[in-house]
Amino acid sequence: MISPIEQRTWLVSESPFNPFKLSHTETIFTVGNGFMGVRGTFEEGYAGDLASTLVHGIFNHAEGDLVPDIVNLPNPLPVHIVVDGEVFHMTAGRVLGYRRTLDLKRAALTREVLWRTTQGVVVKLTFERFASLAAEHLLVQRVRVRALLGSPKVEIRSSIDSAVTNEDVPHLTDIQQRAAEGDLLITARTNQSRYGIAVAAAHSLSTHSAPSTSADQVRYTFDLPQETEVSLTKVSAIYTTRQSKTPDQAAQEAARAALAKGYESLFASHCAAWEQYWHTSDVHIEGDEVAQKAIRFTTYHVLIAAPRHDEHSSIGAKTLSGPGYKGHVFWDTELFMLPMLTLTQPKLARNLLMYRYHNLGGARNKARANGYEGAMFPWESTDTGEETTPQWSHPQPDGTRIRIWTGDTEQHISTDIAYAVLQYWQWTGDDEFFVKHGAEIVLDTAVFWGSRAEYNTEQDRYELKMQIGPDEYHENVDNSAFTNSMVRWHLQQALAVRQWLLAHHAQAAEALLARLGITAERCALWERIAAKMYVPRDPETGVLEQFDGFFNLERLDLTHWQPRVANMDWILGHARAQGVMVIKQADIVMLMALLGEQFGTLEERQANWDFYYPIVDHGSSLSPSTHAWVAARLNLLEDAYKMFIYAANIDLEDLKGNVRDGIHAAASGGVWQALAFGFVGLGLADNGEMQVAPALPPHWQSVTLRVYHRGQLKTIRLTAEG
Amino acid sequence: MISPIEQRTWLVSESPFNPFKLSHTETIFTVGNGFMGVRGTFEEGYAGDLASTLVHGIFNHAEGDLVPDIVNLPNPLPVHIVVDGEVFHMTAGRVLGYRRTLDLKRAALTREVLWRTTQGVVVKLTFERFASLAAEHLLVQRVRVRALLGSPKVEIRSSIDSAVTNEDVPHLTDIQQRAAEGDLLITARTNQSRYGIAVAAAHSLSTHSAPSTSADQVRYTFDLPQETEVSLTKVSAIYTTRQSKTPDQAAQEAARAALAKGYESLFASHCAAWEQYWHTSDVHIEGDEVAQKAIRFTTYHVLIAAPRHDEHSSIGAKTLSGPGYKGHVFWDTELFMLPMLTLTQPKLARNLLMYRYHNLGGARNKARANGYEGAMFPWESTDTGEETTPQWSHPQPDGTRIRIWTGDTEQHISTDIAYAVLQYWQWTGDDEFFVKHGAEIVLDTAVFWGSRAEYNTEQDRYELKMQIGPDEYHENVDNSAFTNSMVRWHLQQALAVRQWLLAHHAQAAEALLARLGITAERCALWERIAAKMYVPRDPETGVLEQFDGFFNLERLDLTHWQPRVANMDWILGHARAQGVMVIKQADIVMLMALLGEQFGTLEERQANWDFYYPIVDHGSSLSPSTHAWVAARLNLLEDAYKMFIYAANIDLEDLKGNVRDGIHAAASGGVWQALAFGFVGLGLADNGEMQVAPALPPHWQSVTLRVYHRGQLKTIRLTAEG
Repeated sequence: MISPIEQRTWLVSESPFNPFKLSHTETIFTVGNGFMGVRGTFEEGYAGDLASTLVHGIFNHAEGDLVPDIVNLPNPLPVHIVVDGEVFHMTAGRVLGYRRTLDLKRAALTREVLWRTTQGVVVKLTFERFASLAAEHLLVQRVRVRALLGSPKVEIRSSIDSAVTNEDVPHLTDIQQRAAEGDLLITARTNQSRYGIAVAAAHSLSTHSAPSTSADQVRYTFDLPQETEVSLTKVSAIYTTRQSKTPDQAAQEAARAALAKGYESLFASHCAAWEQYWHTSDVHIEGDEVAQKAIRFTTYHVLIAAPRHDEHSSIGAKTLSGPGYKGHVFWDTELFMLPMLTLTQPKLARNLLMYRYHNLGGARNKARANGYEGAMFPWESTDTGEETTPQWSHPQPDGTRIRIWTGDTEQHISTDIAYAVLQYWQWTGDDEFFVKHGAEIVLDTAVFWGSRAEYNTEQDRYELKMQIGPDEYHENVDNSAFTNSMVRWHLQQALAVRQWLLAHHAQAAEALLARLGITAERCALWERIAAKMYVPRDPETGVLEQFDGFFNLERLDLTHWQPRVANMDWILGHARAQGVMVIKQADIVMLMALLGEQFGTLEERQANWDFYYPIVDHGSSLSPSTHAWVAARLNLLEDAYKMFIYAANIDLEDLKGNVRDGIHAAASGGVWQALAFGFVGLGLADNGEMQVAPALPPHWQSVTLRVYHRGQLKTIRLTAEG
Repeated sequence: MISPIEQRTWLVSESPFNPFKLSHTETIFTVGNGFMGVRGTFEEGYAGDLASTLVHGIFNHAEGDLVPDIVNLPNPLPVHIVVDGEVFHMTAGRVLGYRRTLDLKRAALTREVLWRTTQGVVVKLTFERFASLAAEHLLVQRVRVRALLGSPKVEIRSSIDSAVTNEDVPHLTDIQQRAAEGDLLITARTNQSRYGIAVAAAHSLSTHSAPSTSADQVRYTFDLPQETEVSLTKVSAIYTTRQSKTPDQAAQEAARAALAKGYESLFASHCAAWEQYWHTSDVHIEGDEVAQKAIRFTTYHVLIAAPRHDEHSSIGAKTLSGPGYKGHVFWDTELFMLPMLTLTQPKLARNLLMYRYHNLGGARNKARANGYEGAMFPWESTDTGEETTPQWSHPQPDGTRIRIWTGDTEQHISTDIAYAVLQYWQWTGDDEFFVKHGAEIVLDTAVFWGSRAEYNTEQDRYELKMQIGPDEYHENVDNSAFTNSMVRWHLQQALAVRQWLLAHHAQAAEALLARLGITAERCALWERIAAKMYVPRDPETGVLEQFDGFFNLERLDLTHWQPRVANMDWILGHARAQGVMVIKQADIVMLMALLGEQFGTLEERQANWDFYYPIVDHGSSLSPSTHAWVAARLNLLEDAYKMFIYAANIDLEDLKGNVRDGIHAAASGGVWQALAFGFVGLGLADNGEMQVAPALPPHWQSVTLRVYHRGQLKTIRLTAEG
């Protein structure tokens, strides 16, 4: 007997159908495989749904728009079932029962519906789908129709919907439809970036029935005697010119070849691949079913978004599960999603870091355009590696637009990426990657900071003016304590990296240092900056001042602002929020997370926590998991657990009210991070040895996780008894 | 640090507000205290809501209706809050956050809302309510308004809504409204049964503000500076002529006196009373948060419905939480809710049995009207004790009505009540009750059966024609194996009771036997019937035939009819369902539950399970818990747990789709019963000693429950290790 808890914590279910939550469930029921993400839209379509078929790397600027969108591709899902002339739809006839289940273990979505036609025929319909992890171009569907009462004539109509947009913005042109016996093909081009895309579908029916194929539809018609079942297998393949010069041929061949293998065989390969994923990435928690289920859910969503065979793409802030942030890549990837992958799926982590390496060109362009040296990574990044942050918001209710400054002044991302590179290197020991690629990222971003830091002659210190720290409620501040601290740390690391390279890979080092212009003078500058970087701080308490003047802002007691879903800057208004001491998310607390004990003494860390925890809005989904991590390290287990379970349920329970736009991927990765670095206290000693320092929620009986440390898979199991 | 699991399993929460589930949450968020039940309707009212204020024993026949309704009383909940002229409603302004929580431990409902007016003022509104367990006429509310942003002018309007009906059927007449300074009073009469009812409300505001009282409303107006809070306490009292000759005075005095004590004091007394309830009735399950929460929820709903100080009322099938079954009392009470009360709250159990005792008159009337002797309890019972089952259904879609036969031929209820009396007596050892009241129920219902059984001279056996067993899909069958078996058992019990009475309470026994006409001849008849009662059965397998001819019905494979919410008789149609071998609910399995090992050998019990489990529809919510109980006894732990968790979540998750009509109280009680009698294997040995025979779900680490056995409270704690 499988434990019911083990069963329940692998399944996310909906029953009955809740049209009020359609956009929420569409997002959380996304299937994907690191190449594509397909939202949980129903095969037959509903008013207000948001079908979304996204693949990594296909971006396009709509006409007149300076900001690229990840392109919504033709929707391969549509299947319509007609029973004795009545088209199946959950608003017609009568639904006698409904259950939709995402099986996290097998990464498969199933919907079962008992449906009664107006004439009294009862059928059971089962819709299955998965995005194959074994063959990433494939979306595989099966639709089963069983006659329970009556013996109807059934028609199944399958199509690919090319009338797709990104929330009414069209990106595709040259759309062509072709069809042959049981096969469908749609080809198109993105209208600005000129990517070619192709979606092909091949079909097979479990009973003999010749398909009738029109330009845009494949139809099967058959009699279905009571207590018999017929199933349609539909294999769709997606290719773009990023993978093939002839995506149409590639897609058609892939779909046909896969169809020949049959559904069960395709599903078996898919499950086997997932078994490998879970073998290393699953976290097992005993004594807390809610946490167990949630962390499987969050881990699933990071895994389905991580590119497997593509080092020119990265994971957007909303993964491939929705239109939010237009598919753009932020620091979310490096500081929230990457750690889980670095430790449990290092190959995937490497892909993501290589994306940054390949896009050093864009970062250098940005630095030059802003009058700096080295590599200044864009705040929002897409396929080109250029800065793609919008400069202006959509119009507000009063008609005005708000200037978005993050692309200009939220510059800490260059250090965040360097941090992730170093973390990857330390955990994996992947010197080959580091020498060839990683070091260049760390060093050239250091070059940028060397050119960016401003010397204040009066105070004999280095400063950084006009910054945005993690707390985006306060823009263009001077001397963000987070940024200044991280830049100091970054330059120190860069100096150490240079030494290590020279000591261990002298030839490569010389070439690289020469190419990047890292001279003795530049190193001396870095040393001066690191030594004299200004970090605002109350000398009595040790509390960092988030930026110059922060301590003088208007105070607002947040105690009674619960339960709050809306963000404080929305409530207060963007302008007013600048002057109020309410912060969007972990900022100094984020610094505490990243630097750990290097941040300061236990007393100093506690004092900073006490100051910043009460004034944080968690207006960013990145915030709760970071707080959980730091609270656990301070042994504040009640707060730690509260923040952890909040982060873990953000998407499952739609706690921010905006899951419609896509999964909060940073929160998802952050949950693993809070568990591993917070509760488990996983870390590396100075000598590189792995160590744990557990501070588990007291009601957890055990937690078990696996991590790779320098190529070796290790199992860590902690129990309440110790 | 309180365990998060302990916290979570006492709370049922909703967040965000889900208008799609309004009718579901209204039911599950009902508060009550054994006198009144008040649905979780919002203070400000919403389209489609179903405010319902029910008290035990107040029934009324609407004009022209032969079937009485439990009367929906004036709604004491309404409170409207006006902020700078804008009336608070969750469809107006903007809800920045929302959470509603039923605290099962304290039996209190709280709603917190952050609300922003269109002008940008932000207030926090907190709505609290409880139906006092310490003073059962009182519904206590508190509404707190806090200004978070801005300093608005606030107006609070409180009223009692007398424009109430039972789903558009009016029951009240002579409605009078009176108001004095801060007080409201509504009096009325039920228009047929002439019960007088009164609902009074008294108010106090936490800040100085003289109320302005109109005929139907109390209003307070005040300024609310930012970061301050004002609260209104509203104490409503409900009295009827069942409690007082002058319910208007009683209600007004009770409301005023309670108000003088203040909210905190009233709440403290209420919580103290609940602590006593939970001290004996709480079941603690370690290792299964879902089960733990669900059983607290189901136990809560039985406890809030059980009369504390009234032995002339009983618990309707839907408790006091909704209009379903018009508040009528079925066998659900005796065989599903009573066991939990008999074992954990014997005083409440006694009240419920006394309800049947006081209504023996109605049962005798029914027997006489049908040409029988003794006491024949009504299938549906209300305040009069007369049969109140409707004879015809509401019109079906095709305009026809279906004849409802249960009031005529579902006669096993007389034995079910006797079973509950004997169970109460055996567990409590309450001889005083038994001699004075209980024995009369057992014996006079036996008199009925003696007159009801039909002798078949050809076969030399006794039979019962025209019965409905628990499986109501098959009506007016001959020789229901359940009914015939239970009648045989009943007559044997009656004979034993007679012996015991004569041996231990000779004088009382003589008088009772004489009064009931229980002569030596009648006893001889009972013996003959018990010896020769026919129970259809396959002699080879030992499988009981549910009734004559059942084995010949059309078979229908239910395997693929999942997930199913609609009932099979609705799907098949009432007439066709009669001929199909699909049963509504546990029938033979119910018999196995009640008789335990007396039913037959282990092989026979297993054979009966194997036959009946696959064909049961669970069209009645009574079914899953009974299956859980029996499966546990057969050590079929996977099925047992599946059925148990289904029963436990029927209302929390609205698994039958009809929670709008009220709580499935039998399922609620059945959950406790399945746990205690099924998994724990609680029982009484022949010598009256309590015994356990655990068969726990393997993933449960422990289960702890308390039961009274012959006046002694015993704690049973079982662990997985044994």
